[in-house]
Amino acid sequence: MSHAQSSHSALPPEPDFVSRHIGPSDDDTAEMLKVVGQPSIDALIDAAVPGGIRSERPLRVEAAPSEEAVIEELHRLASRNTVLTSMIGLGYYGTVTPPVVRRNVLENPAWYTAYTPYQPEISQGRLEALINFQTVVTDLTGLATAGASLLDEGTAAAEAMTLMRRTSKVAQDAVLLVDEHVLPQTIAVIQTRAKPLGLGVVVADLTPVADAASLTAAAGDRAVFGVLVQYPGADGELRDWSALAAAAHEAGALVTAAADLLALTLATPPGEWGADVAVGSSQRFGVPMGFGGPHAGYMSVRAGLERSLPGRLVGVSVDADGHQAYRLALQTREQHIRREKATSNICTAQVLLAVMASMYAVWHGPQGLARIARRTHAHAAALAEGLRAGGVDVATTHFFDTVTVAVPGRAAEVVAEAAARGVNLWPVDADRVSVSTDETTDLADLQAVWAAFGVTGLTEVRDAEPSWPAALVRETAYLTHPVFHTHHSETAMLRYLRRLSDKDYALDRGMIPLGSCTMKLNATTEMEAVTWPEFAGLHPFAPASQTEGIRELVTDLASWLCEVTGYDEVSLQPNAGSQGELAGLLAIHAYHEARGDAARTVCLIPASAHGTNAASAVMAGMKVVVVKTAEGGDIDMDDLRAKVEQHRDQLAAIMVTYPSTHGVFEDTISELCELVHDAGGQVYVDGANLNALVGIARPGKFGADVSHLNLHKTFCIPHGGGGPGVGPVGVRAHLAPYLPNHPLAPEAGPATGVGPISAAPYGSASILPISWAYVRLMGGAGLTKATQTAILSANYVAARLRDHFPVLYAGPEGLVAHECILDVREITRTTGVTVDDVAKRLIDYGFHAPTMSFPVAGTLMVEPTESEDLAELDRFCDAMVAIRGEIEQVARGDVAVADSALRHAPHTALSLAGEWDHPYDRHTAAYPHGVDPRAKYWPPVRRIDGAFGDRNLVCSCPPPEAFED
Amino acid sequence: MSHAQSSHSALPPEPDFVSRHIGPSDDDTAEMLKVVGQPSIDALIDAAVPGGIRSERPLRVEAAPSEEAVIEELHRLASRNTVLTSMIGLGYYGTVTPPVVRRNVLENPAWYTAYTPYQPEISQGRLEALINFQTVVTDLTGLATAGASLLDEGTAAAEAMTLMRRTSKVAQDAVLLVDEHVLPQTIAVIQTRAKPLGLGVVVADLTPVADAASLTAAAGDRAVFGVLVQYPGADGELRDWSALAAAAHEAGALVTAAADLLALTLATPPGEWGADVAVGSSQRFGVPMGFGGPHAGYMSVRAGLERSLPGRLVGVSVDADGHQAYRLALQTREQHIRREKATSNICTAQVLLAVMASMYAVWHGPQGLARIARRTHAHAAALAEGLRAGGVDVATTHFFDTVTVAVPGRAAEVVAEAAARGVNLWPVDADRVSVSTDETTDLADLQAVWAAFGVTGLTEVRDAEPSWPAALVRETAYLTHPVFHTHHSETAMLRYLRRLSDKDYALDRGMIPLGSCTMKLNATTEMEAVTWPEFAGLHPFAPASQTEGIRELVTDLASWLCEVTGYDEVSLQPNAGSQGELAGLLAIHAYHEARGDAARTVCLIPASAHGTNAASAVMAGMKVVVVKTAEGGDIDMDDLRAKVEQHRDQLAAIMVTYPSTHGVFEDTISELCELVHDAGGQVYVDGANLNALVGIARPGKFGADVSHLNLHKTFCIPHGGGGPGVGPVGVRAHLAPYLPNHPLAPEAGPATGVGPISAAPYGSASILPISWAYVRLMGGAGLTKATQTAILSANYVAARLRDHFPVLYAGPEGLVAHECILDVREITRTTGVTVDDVAKRLIDYGFHAPTMSFPVAGTLMVEPTESEDLAELDRFCDAMVAIRGEIEQVARGDVAVADSALRHAPHTALSLAGEWDHPYDRHTAAYPHGVDPRAKYWPPVRRIDGAFGDRNLVCSCPPPEAFED
Repeated sequence: MSHAQSSHSALPPEPDFVSRHIGPSDDDTAEMLKVVGQPSIDALIDAAVPGGIRSERPLRVEAAPSEEAVIEELHRLASRNTVLTSMIGLGYYGTVTPPVVRRNVLENPAWYTAYTPYQPEISQGRLEALINFQTVVTDLTGLATAGASLLDEGTAAAEAMTLMRRTSKVAQDAVLLVDEHVLPQTIAVIQTRAKPLGLGVVVADLTPVADAASLTAAAGDRAVFGVLVQYPGADGELRDWSALAAAAHEAGALVTAAADLLALTLATPPGEWGADVAVGSSQRFGVPMGFGGPHAGYMSVRAGLERSLPGRLVGVSVDADGHQAYRLALQTREQHIRREKATSNICTAQVLLAVMASMYAVWHGPQGLARIARRTHAHAAALAEGLRAGGVDVATTHFFDTVTVAVPGRAAEVVAEAAARGVNLWPVDADRVSVSTDETTDLADLQAVWAAFGVTGLTEVRDAEPSWPAALVRETAYLTHPVFHTHHSETAMLRYLRRLSDKDYALDRGMIPLGSCTMKLNATTEMEAVTWPEFAGLHPFAPASQTEGIRELVTDLASWLCEVTGYDEVSLQPNAGSQGELAGLLAIHAYHEARGDAARTVCLIPASAHGTNAASAVMAGMKVVVVKTAEGGDIDMDDLRAKVEQHRDQLAAIMVTYPSTHGVFEDTISELCELVHDAGGQVYVDGANLNALVGIARPGKFGADVSHLNLHKTFCIPHGGGGPGVGPVGVRAHLAPYLPNHPLAPEAGPATGVGPISAAPYGSASILPISWAYVRLMGGAGLTKATQTAILSANYVAARLRDHFPVLYAGPEGLVAHECILDVREITRTTGVTVDDVAKRLIDYGFHAPTMSFPVAGTLMVEPTESEDLAELDRFCDAMVAIRGEIEQVARGDVAVADSALRHAPHTALSLAGEWDHPYDRHTAAYPHGVDPRAKYWPPVRRIDGAFGDRNLVCSCPPPEAFED
Repeated sequence: MSHAQSSHSALPPEPDFVSRHIGPSDDDTAEMLKVVGQPSIDALIDAAVPGGIRSERPLRVEAAPSEEAVIEELHRLASRNTVLTSMIGLGYYGTVTPPVVRRNVLENPAWYTAYTPYQPEISQGRLEALINFQTVVTDLTGLATAGASLLDEGTAAAEAMTLMRRTSKVAQDAVLLVDEHVLPQTIAVIQTRAKPLGLGVVVADLTPVADAASLTAAAGDRAVFGVLVQYPGADGELRDWSALAAAAHEAGALVTAAADLLALTLATPPGEWGADVAVGSSQRFGVPMGFGGPHAGYMSVRAGLERSLPGRLVGVSVDADGHQAYRLALQTREQHIRREKATSNICTAQVLLAVMASMYAVWHGPQGLARIARRTHAHAAALAEGLRAGGVDVATTHFFDTVTVAVPGRAAEVVAEAAARGVNLWPVDADRVSVSTDETTDLADLQAVWAAFGVTGLTEVRDAEPSWPAALVRETAYLTHPVFHTHHSETAMLRYLRRLSDKDYALDRGMIPLGSCTMKLNATTEMEAVTWPEFAGLHPFAPASQTEGIRELVTDLASWLCEVTGYDEVSLQPNAGSQGELAGLLAIHAYHEARGDAARTVCLIPASAHGTNAASAVMAGMKVVVVKTAEGGDIDMDDLRAKVEQHRDQLAAIMVTYPSTHGVFEDTISELCELVHDAGGQVYVDGANLNALVGIARPGKFGADVSHLNLHKTFCIPHGGGGPGVGPVGVRAHLAPYLPNHPLAPEAGPATGVGPISAAPYGSASILPISWAYVRLMGGAGLTKATQTAILSANYVAARLRDHFPVLYAGPEGLVAHECILDVREITRTTGVTVDDVAKRLIDYGFHAPTMSFPVAGTLMVEPTESEDLAELDRFCDAMVAIRGEIEQVARGDVAVADSALRHAPHTALSLAGEWDHPYDRHTAAYPHGVDPRAKYWPPVRRIDGAFGDRNLVCSCPPPEAFED
């Protein structure tokens, strides 16, 4: 696309966005360079980054003239989308986001700039929102335990497949049996994911299955480890699956229901008819369709399976004062702990969207949800009745919101007629059209649909009770907890949202110096377009002619990412870094297979890698071989050579992070690429640390074949408290034919692709404008300056703290990349003060802790990013130096570690008001050195006992009495 | 307009907005009625409201079907506005609102739902923002002291007129001398305001004035008390007024400069060339034009005049711990204290807009502002140069941003040509066109303008230094305070805004039960349209053909307000309640005059009236006669009869508030109206308490002739921390010819009108969509239910608290209207505990205090509004009961009042951390009965010593060192 500047003045507009995004001013930069001991920023980069990998030329990305110009360009793109009323269904529905939730959550930095709640003491607000979400899911599905969200319905179903496989005791060659009425994109995602794992998937009509024998028959006489059904089906039919469930259990299989949460307010929940697992999407609980995402997928399981749940799970525990507190439960299940033994690679979830969905339920309460469901159903009933009255053949018998209509040979024509009247329907095939109602459907929509089918003159919609068999009519109560009954006025809701967000520490309060997580500015201008109806209102399967604007935006962004990374193609479909990894590895797998090299299944992974790498490799059907770390923290090249030699013929790939997870630009990277390529393997560079490379080095040009990026790290998509993320995968040309594609959107990927990696063709499309805007605002020069500043800031922190905490690894000249590791191990050995103590004490000083014990146990990894200004960097360094002073008191024996402020941190305001038997005084506890009393952040709870909560697992809303003293 | 429902389903959408706006549920209402002792809400209303004034029929206002439908309707109205690039100037300029400020101030309830900072301990955030604003104004104008904002430039100039009159020692028949280059709307507002005060205004070309003699000559040989000039002039010319200023001072007159803040970054400030006063608008500091408002007007004065400043002034003082703290200074100047002796009736200011303007300065800093000014000037210079090069006659010699171009006989044609190219210019007259540049001007705009004048082919804009005489080139520094140098990255700015808002208590934290101020829900949907460019981007003097949508919205709203109030016409021009009052009284004044009844100048005002009433009456040229209050709090009807008799022939009007400021429906209202009418007077009903009448009684039908309303009370415009407000005036038909009008917008009022009461034709037009949306969302039935609930809630509070604090006044059956007065006088007498103690202790309990000592000293007036739910009402009542318990401890002698938690309230977290020598413990101090530790609001300072600050007046940013312990 062309961004003509001719209409703009020769004088630049003020202010320059680059200087708004980058924290340090030019004066600050000069001061920081002095501390780092480098004469200029160019000299610093020359010294820090190996010459061999440096880019040969500046980035060719033009900057927009101003923030307003970018908004104008986005408006132009938006205007090229046509938002029709969607009655397509298939897992994506019109919904009304409560305005109070949109403004105060989705458009509020206190919510969207928060990090994953790994520091639970400063995340109680969003943890409460997530436990509300879990309660919504468990109550509605009738199952015991729900997780805090998954990526989407399709991947949730794939996770259910592997969960069932792990849990079922039947033979290893057993298959997954999928009812043919499961959503087509879900079936496709499952097939993509089953293939590398060698799992058989059989799709069949399971309606007739009534016993174990017919189950086996349906599976082509193979054993069955799991069954997946849709409830209601993609065709709209609400089927009674209780006989199937009994048959499956008899055969040793588990049953997963992909279920619609809104339908479950009126229909018997899966947990009551025998499902072991439920999965689905919470999109229609107030989250716009957004051309496919992001939305929060969900999974819930029956009692006994909770320790097999993939993804994050929020539970209740207690703090040091015995008060109730929330935190992530059973973390030892997760990929960052279990690595190649993990059962899922899920990392980032969809926290912001789960929060929104939970607040939709809080806002409406059970009565409100049921009213919405009844209204939705009444419109579907009126629709069907009207069609039948007009002589049209409605094929669906018992339905909630969707009917399939038989129009032999005329499906395309009817769909076109409806579109001409402003409504999108779904052509199931040449002879059938399906129509779904939702919360937003009104009489005018029905009239348009009727007219498209040739029926006119109808003007009535009556309230309708569920019109399905009694066995499927829900009898049990749900959402009985008071939280779903107390915030129904806008005033009350506003205050609840404020109260929750006030408990949390997000980027709007101060820096979040998380190594490998790149918590930088999420600028307002970048966020603007997310809530525009032209992006938010698109169904992912809307005709391509209606989605030109968003797809041009996707194309722009992909081409800019190619320019930045040096790759030839980028797919934006993966909706999390973990999915990008899997997509990249699947491409490698498919590439080898296509060359007849199917034996190449070994994936070398350095010991210091993110746990997700190993988990993803296993999911891609690879065997993980670990490469050792050398003394200085770099990859042990001798060990690498040996491993390459040992697995030469089986070598599929190596996965490395660059700069390394140790925060160092290793100068062996070129040699490493050569070694692996020589052996016939592919080089996968994890893009987690791309913020240290943009504009300086391009993985696709210095030897890598594939990378995934994290748009929520390097490209300013906010972390949202733990998602959404976007994890595009970039590849060199030879891997491009094996990128993800999508069965319902041929334009979304290569025909030879590996299938869909996410449920929607473009993954989390509605948040791509954020990264698009960031790149346009910064331009190549701005992006490069950001990288330089990020590297300078990390080296500044390292230089200021080196005398107080050893900086664990460094490259030549003692320089780090964009993050640095502070070693606390010796301190722990000699004083007993742990990284936990330092991290929790930082809360008293008004900070979010750095990354703890990754990649090296007993250390803290600090990534300041380019967006923090010098004052904030100094505030952090001063706090760390002051904490070092507190540690010295322990070292000197002035105070026992068990009695120290370090160990008792964080301190709440409430604890100040009570009895005080610490050897330090209250002021020292709460206002240690440098804390501005006028800007004090108060954690709502004291240090949380995570183990207690794991031993006493509670993952839905505790009764209010639990919070009484 | 017609709002067809035919396209909507027979089934209502969920949820119903009325139930979101009104706090108590139906169950709650039933419970509350029990406590109040009424069988039903209808019975309550029948008992509380005199039958004689009740409406004869329900309100005829249709409700929209849903919130989304209202947004759609607003989009339709918005689409009927055409937003061209405005180069009209005349005090309104294009500007870029920093996105971080828009999202986190203008769209953030923490800022916009706050109340006027009368409780300074819980308002430190916005008070700091306001002192920043004052610093911006004092620094840029070069004068000693600036106020915290006025309503607009026109009224600020009118305030300057009266300030100069009060201060000047010259003869009483002296005149105001106004340079003819002052903005035309400013001159018109001054004329409107001068007339009732009997002040002469002479408009002349003051350029030649160089000594006292020529000054007197210019004034037609009359003495001169004040001089007003525009700097730069409306024609663009930047004149050196130093000789004029010297001449004025010699003649005993004062000098006011209406000055452009952006120009002052480059031009010698008025304070340096001799002005005593500066006034103007801060609109172009990041506040959209919004079809005329709201924006923050400003006034600054030289040393010695600070005690004559109208409106609110923020100053620095200290709290009980000796820490620096902000609060409103010199309040004894204000109308609520001085009543008819007040020098201004200014009450509500423009806090939210002043905050925005101040943050624009914080964001850009002095260098950034100067760059914007230079860029603006460079574009004007290029424009003039291009025109001259093309042979066009540019009449302006020295200019900042505006040039007047001579096009004999062709002005209309040129303006039309420019409009066709997307740019609005200003036709000064048939022969001259003026063109103004601003921050947003770019080359394309200049090219359009050049083309409109027939000049083409120019493509260059060069940076340009000021091109005016050296004496007018600014040399002095400004904005040297660190706050203007530290928040220049978006991250830093975001955190500054969060930090400030975290200090404050607004509606997003809890109830603000202010009698007479009606702090109800400001719903998100109501707020949406305010920031839409179709409303925000309109110049107030844009051609009517471009503003059809907003004017239709104005017409709708006016007609709904007529329906609600029973009046025949409503003018929406007054941009505050005080201005509405003045407009109403001017209409009465003009009516009498038109009937040859010019002697009618007596205005009866009950002793319990708002101070503003009396101040407004004086400004309208009336003589205030006070009517006594009877024993029970009602108007003393005997005294009224006597006063009517006594002033029968001079009686102009009576001003009463209904229901009374005592919160009672007086049943004598009909008799009162009759008495006054019989004597030939008019009845003015102050609409401050309209929230108790909507849908129940209509002043225009029960005897009143005129009322002003407060859209920021009854009709949901948020208080914004002390403005913006909107104060429409409604009149019966006989007064309609005397409503405000506007010289530049004939469509904005009757030709026979009294002139403009605000600078813009429709006042604060850009926030009218808020009230429009509220009425559409509620409909007549919803509005009526809101009123009923507001009355029920007040009676519930009265019933629950009556045994603990006497409820001062009540109507028949002991019922109050929509607010109740809790009498603390006896408590103070017997225990020494004051209303201040109770108010400050309420902060510890997590509340904003009720209205203190109005209308009766030593009392608290509580207005809960309909938006507070039962849980919040109970939380408040429980807190008051608990405080009563604490008072009992003092009464029993268990604790001395001087040592009590009541006297030492509020308690900060910091105070908890220090030494503790109170007889009560820390927990009692900070977490008294019922306070939820997980939702604790912490005031940032302790009780503030207001008198100290008045004795040691500091009204601009104190140095950072001042905040060190």
